[in-house]
Amino acid sequence: MFTPTHVYSLPMHTKNWLKWRYATKKFDATKEVSADDLEYILEAGNLAATSYGLQPFKIVVVTDKEKKQALVGHAYNQGQVGENSALLVLAARTDVDATYIAEYTARIERTRSLPAGAVDGYKDMMVGDLTNRTEADRLVWAQKQAYIALGTMMIAAAEKGIDNAPMEGFNPAGFNEILGLSAHNLHATVILAIGYRSTEDETQNYAKVRKNLDDIVVRI
Amino acid sequence: MFTPTHVYSLPMHTKNWLKWRYATKKFDATKEVSADDLEYILEAGNLAATSYGLQPFKIVVVTDKEKKQALVGHAYNQGQVGENSALLVLAARTDVDATYIAEYTARIERTRSLPAGAVDGYKDMMVGDLTNRTEADRLVWAQKQAYIALGTMMIAAAEKGIDNAPMEGFNPAGFNEILGLSAHNLHATVILAIGYRSTEDETQNYAKVRKNLDDIVVRI
Repeated sequence: MFTPTHVYSLPMHTKNWLKWRYATKKFDATKEVSADDLEYILEAGNLAATSYGLQPFKIVVVTDKEKKQALVGHAYNQGQVGENSALLVLAARTDVDATYIAEYTARIERTRSLPAGAVDGYKDMMVGDLTNRTEADRLVWAQKQAYIALGTMMIAAAEKGIDNAPMEGFNPAGFNEILGLSAHNLHATVILAIGYRSTEDETQNYAKVRKNLDDIVVRI
Repeated sequence: MFTPTHVYSLPMHTKNWLKWRYATKKFDATKEVSADDLEYILEAGNLAATSYGLQPFKIVVVTDKEKKQALVGHAYNQGQVGENSALLVLAARTDVDATYIAEYTARIERTRSLPAGAVDGYKDMMVGDLTNRTEADRLVWAQKQAYIALGTMMIAAAEKGIDNAPMEGFNPAGFNEILGLSAHNLHATVILAIGYRSTEDETQNYAKVRKNLDDIVVRI
């Protein structure tokens, strides 16, 4: 009998996907990620955990070819920024304030059918914590949450056999300007190009370099 | 026919795991994560992508009950910090310097059977980039990478049916002291408690609160 229970207990899915993926340097220009697969990746990013559940970032999906080409010059001329099926720009929010937090707690109350004000204590705690931080510290906090979603979307993409390349090597100010992010209180933080690897990308054959587990794990 | 190909193409594993998991508030004190499952989660964390592949953090696995209890007071008395099967403390490295980077490039050369010095250009580029940053900026950079591994380990845990609770609400200085991290050039960054949910944890029944996809995704 092959029931869903058996299927889900098969070992080592996530690990296999992580081993399969690599930082793609050249995508196949003729292959597009399907709309369904793109939605799957984005939905996984939306499901990723964040501090307090505040989701303080947006996922900017750039498919406009001219926009992508304009970004290449702000990313050390890395070709895969312009040539991919979609460029996902994780952009941290710079507007996490009492209003934003109140929208979140209202969403909690709606989702869980709670009376208005039921989570006011939680709201006040979050407002106190976050508005006491400097603007710079709050940005770093929001950016860190985006990295959880980045890791999540890389796994979701690999699950679907979609290649991907995460990159920090770009000029956020240039990205903010070209994509009009600042006007929407967003700050380009980290990017993920997705698509299908080109057969010409020799780096797909390079052995993955990782530490031995004993060199990264400490047991106490 | 039910072949492995069919199994791996079943849709929506990652998404289902993300939907299943929740920030566990109370673990079942009688249930331990198996050694195999713990290794699986740690191996997934080790496979997570990092900037340049530098893996600038360690995963500190705390199972010593007294140590865990000592940490609770530095984590706003959150019970799940002390009561869990294992507490994973992601600790950013503060020693990412030319020596550390040279160890990494030597590992690349060994793993890929390259002659010594084959990736010296890459090494010099990384050293130039990272040593030009302030100590504070380099710490933030290392911490962000740890968050990718955090997201990765949450999925790996959920795949195995292991509950987990990520937390930022703790005092890093207290953690550094109790776990002796500073002496090893490590800085407590974010924590993940793992174990099995207690039937008494009512929050497992709360509906997950997330944005509509249109409220977190921008398409350009």
